Amino acid sequence: MCRWLAYTGAPVLIEHALYTPSHSLIDQSLHSRLGAETTNGDGFGLGWYDAEETPGVFRSIEPAWNDQNLREIAAHTRSYLFFAHVRAAIGSAVQQTNCHPFRHGRWLFMHNGFIGEFDAIKRDLVLAIDPSLYPEIKGQADTEVLFYLSLTLGLEDNPPAALARAIGLVEEYGRRQGVKYPFQGTVATANGDDVWVFRYSTEGRSRSLFFSRDVHTLRELYPQRAILQDISDEARMIVSEPVGDLPGAWIEMPESSWGVAGPGDPQLQPFAPIAPTNAVAVPA
Amino acid sequence: MCRWLAYTGAPVLIEHALYTPSHSLIDQSLHSRLGAETTNGDGFGLGWYDAEETPGVFRSIEPAWNDQNLREIAAHTRSYLFFAHVRAAIGSAVQQTNCHPFRHGRWLFMHNGFIGEFDAIKRDLVLAIDPSLYPEIKGQADTEVLFYLSLTLGLEDNPPAALARAIGLVEEYGRRQGVKYPFQGTVATANGDDVWVFRYSTEGRSRSLFFSRDVHTLRELYPQRAILQDISDEARMIVSEPVGDLPGAWIEMPESSWGVAGPGDPQLQPFAPIAPTNAVAVPA
Amino acid sequence: MCRWLAYTGAPVLIEHALYTPSHSLIDQSLHSRLGAETTNGDGFGLGWYDAEETPGVFRSIEPAWNDQNLREIAAHTRSYLFFAHVRAAIGSAVQQTNCHPFRHGRWLFMHNGFIGEFDAIKRDLVLAIDPSLYPEIKGQADTEVLFYLSLTLGLEDNPPAALARAIGLVEEYGRRQGVKYPFQGTVATANGDDVWVFRYSTEGRSRSLFFSRDVHTLRELYPQRAILQDISDEARMIVSEPVGDLPGAWIEMPESSWGVAGPGDPQLQPFAPIAPTNAVAVPA
Amino acid sequence: MCRWLAYTGAPVLIEHALYTPSHSLIDQSLHSRLGAETTNGDGFGLGWYDAEETPGVFRSIEPAWNDQNLREIAAHTRSYLFFAHVRAAIGSAVQQTNCHPFRHGRWLFMHNGFIGEFDAIKRDLVLAIDPSLYPEIKGQADTEVLFYLSLTLGLEDNPPAALARAIGLVEEYGRRQGVKYPFQGTVATANGDDVWVFRYSTEGRSRSLFFSRDVHTLRELYPQRAILQDISDEARMIVSEPVGDLPGAWIEMPESSWGVAGPGDPQLQPFAPIAPTNAVAVPA
Repeated sequence: MCRWLAYTGAPVLIEHALYTPSHSLIDQSLHSRLGAETTNGDGFGLGWYDAEETPGVFRSIEPAWNDQNLREIAAHTRSYLFFAHVRAAIGSAVQQTNCHPFRHGRWLFMHNGFIGEFDAIKRDLVLAIDPSLYPEIKGQADTEVLFYLSLTLGLEDNPPAALARAIGLVEEYGRRQGVKYPFQGTVATANGDDVWVFRYSTEGRSRSLFFSRDVHTLRELYPQRAILQDISDEARMIVSEPVGDLPGAWIEMPESSWGVAGPGDPQLQPFAPIAPTNAVAVPA
Repeated sequence: MCRWLAYTGAPVLIEHALYTPSHSLIDQSLHSRLGAETTNGDGFGLGWYDAEETPGVFRSIEPAWNDQNLREIAAHTRSYLFFAHVRAAIGSAVQQTNCHPFRHGRWLFMHNGFIGEFDAIKRDLVLAIDPSLYPEIKGQADTEVLFYLSLTLGLEDNPPAALARAIGLVEEYGRRQGVKYPFQGTVATANGDDVWVFRYSTEGRSRSLFFSRDVHTLRELYPQRAILQDISDEARMIVSEPVGDLPGAWIEMPESSWGVAGPGDPQLQPFAPIAPTNAVAVPA
Repeated sequence: MCRWLAYTGAPVLIEHALYTPSHSLIDQSLHSRLGAETTNGDGFGLGWYDAEETPGVFRSIEPAWNDQNLREIAAHTRSYLFFAHVRAAIGSAVQQTNCHPFRHGRWLFMHNGFIGEFDAIKRDLVLAIDPSLYPEIKGQADTEVLFYLSLTLGLEDNPPAALARAIGLVEEYGRRQGVKYPFQGTVATANGDDVWVFRYSTEGRSRSLFFSRDVHTLRELYPQRAILQDISDEARMIVSEPVGDLPGAWIEMPESSWGVAGPGDPQLQPFAPIAPTNAVAVPA
Repeated sequence: MCRWLAYTGAPVLIEHALYTPSHSLIDQSLHSRLGAETTNGDGFGLGWYDAEETPGVFRSIEPAWNDQNLREIAAHTRSYLFFAHVRAAIGSAVQQTNCHPFRHGRWLFMHNGFIGEFDAIKRDLVLAIDPSLYPEIKGQADTEVLFYLSLTLGLEDNPPAALARAIGLVEEYGRRQGVKYPFQGTVATANGDDVWVFRYSTEGRSRSLFFSRDVHTLRELYPQRAILQDISDEARMIVSEPVGDLPGAWIEMPESSWGVAGPGDPQLQPFAPIAPTNAVAVPA
């Protein structure tokens, strides 16, 4: 149910991250190896930061693998921080407003996974969203609701705490409806400076997520690889499943953890949802 | 902001109603004369009843005028009751889930007009929808919310009363937010047997709506017209603006009225919204 | 590279053939087992005969598996002869004019396979098409060119001979350009009465193709299966790969053969292309 | 039948040219004043030059006026030379491969107008295209054929001579088929350095075309207008119909003329097609 990629580092042409590597995200749209579904053909999205005030977002309901416009935009857009997402729809319609990443001001948000039996608890969750944010909801995806819940619960101030509260609420409302595993997934969110990533599921069997190793280490491992000389020192990718063909280039994120992408290997922290009654405590 | 057409009578090929007449609905998608907008190119929809349990619905985000699939389906589908709608989007996204007609079980619903400052009152309106219906809302159009409000307020038992209550609620919630003219439009709804049509706006300047005269009268007026010999006696069309080229063939619905399409000239009734506190009274 | 299905028999709702069986064609659009590609997500098409003069054609660039309009049309259209096709594009654009089936008058045509190195010989092949047919070519697919070549070479009079000549021309022109295996595939064509099917490849390793056994035999094999009591005696399906879960229900078409679908097990004939210089001889 | 815009000057955000002015090209997609059609809703295209080797091209079959992706890309892409085109289809399908601008290597090409009775002469024109270019033809638009004819006849060496020969061929082949007015339109082509524009029709009643006056002159005319202070000295726009609200800002190109956009008012030259037998002479 979806695969995604996040990049942060010196500006690069998006196509170098999205198309050039073997088993790229575009290839994963057709032939995912580690995903819950092989095919992620129900649309895609690209969100990128540049010199403008808000990030750009390009979303389409076509499969990514043959989309000529995505290829063009990736070949002509440079960005220091971007998200790409290929979708396998489960339940909600194939329409642009259900494609990730979602955007609010300078924030982007994307997700691989689901809210269990979303229809049963959607109304309660939507009611928990700040009424001033409510009109911004344009689609019907569970992820969009999770994003606005997180914004309501402080995403812009403290992303890990806000997401812990949002997922805590999802779990609480889900359990009230008898849902065994209310949340599943990996999440990325960014504000144009940092990228926060999360891996968590109620069941404890979360969708896969990998960090690229730091570029210095990779260059030592593969001194012959020209591409590693071209990449900036602080470049970092976070992906649902490894791209490229370099063994040892990727570190799997542990279950129930979060981190911030930046220079050096990420300092991973344990992640635990905050139940609504404990909403004062924060994980960070 | 949209144009629509409803047909009831002996089964006909949909193309005869949709494409054949001069200034057809398809022509109105490009060159509306009486609409608030000349162009209604933000998608379209077709809903038709046949021998199956629920009506079929075909919706697209392409403009109707050049849509090859609509042409094919219209040329191969016979129906005794169908709705067609061409959309001019105002505010909500161009996506299939925002295209009319909307469907619930055997019911179809379409609208030309708007809920004033919908964003400001959408949340309140959505909260008034029966929670068991809530998960069926797939898009973000004001009309879809009006449909589910009407269903909540008894559409399946008494369409005029339910719509009076629903529009009454829209007006009440709108006025609380300072909206001067909360409702505008013409509405059609059907259950596979009858078609109910409504023309009303808070402002008292409603979108145009016309009934075709009964076929006997038309044959007397135009004895030479072969097409009128082919049409069944009880055939009736209701349209946002007249199609065809026969003067005298159409009767304008008066302001603030409703009617049921059937044999003979429709018995038009006055329409008045029922404010929430008066919700016991019904107009029929 | 595509999967297809053809049905002939008493009129049925298309959905019963397209969606109801296990491992249906719609499932094959996402999870093909025998195809050259697992995913056939680059659009689809449906062509059906009814009481109208020409068959209807509905084509879309969306993947079939989540297409709501296909589901609706299949659930509301009855036909005694229809083609359905899910596409995996190889080379030509994902656009409706490249989706199968193609239509000319009462004829439909669809294909799973390819013309080898089509770009190298496309111009020569197009020049061999009757100039009066040339303006009807709307897309850029190899199959559309093969269809108009076949029409030029007599498809409407003798489909097996015309296809043998058309493929003979493809092989001749291909070989002149050094193409080792100029043709690959299975083809179906129909005129509203009969369905002709072909399995052939220059290489002798053709895409898979199966006939359903005659309904009498199936009923003897599976007396408990209610669905087999509902199907008409003369019903027949031809499919790229078996649908449903009844062992013994399908007969594989041999390499280099053709047949006409009708009552009784099809009389299969050997198929061999006719080289341009031998164009007088016909295989039937 | 279409409206277009070309910009050359210091790099600007495309949205400033495409969305910001009153009666912008986006507005013209819905409400053209001078075009043959009011509505240009059958898709659009954007082609832009940047630091990459070939220009980027983004094309869509949605109407431009509500396309969210066009808005995003225009708001995040800077270019020193770009083309934008909104389409009103006449005859050929609404598909991306029929949308302007067309691209070959570093060249872009767009057109407002048509080849008269194209179906009757298309085959002859296509045969005149260099066979090595033939496989690049992806759609079925008359303009794409004109582009590849022009490339065949020397566009990359001498655009005015090549276009004169190409249109000469169109006129010759058209007349042989009894077409009274074989060519109509305005054309723009660019190689990343210069923009050539043409206005010509066999009939002598060509689609409208306007040059912006040079920026110095505009600043003198409108010293208060902040936007004119922000624009680079050498900025120039060429448009099907004037955008913005500054009287005197636009100069109409005369009938049967061509020019190169650059600093200073353009040196316009007379344009006359070169009949095939005179193909040695060049207009420049």
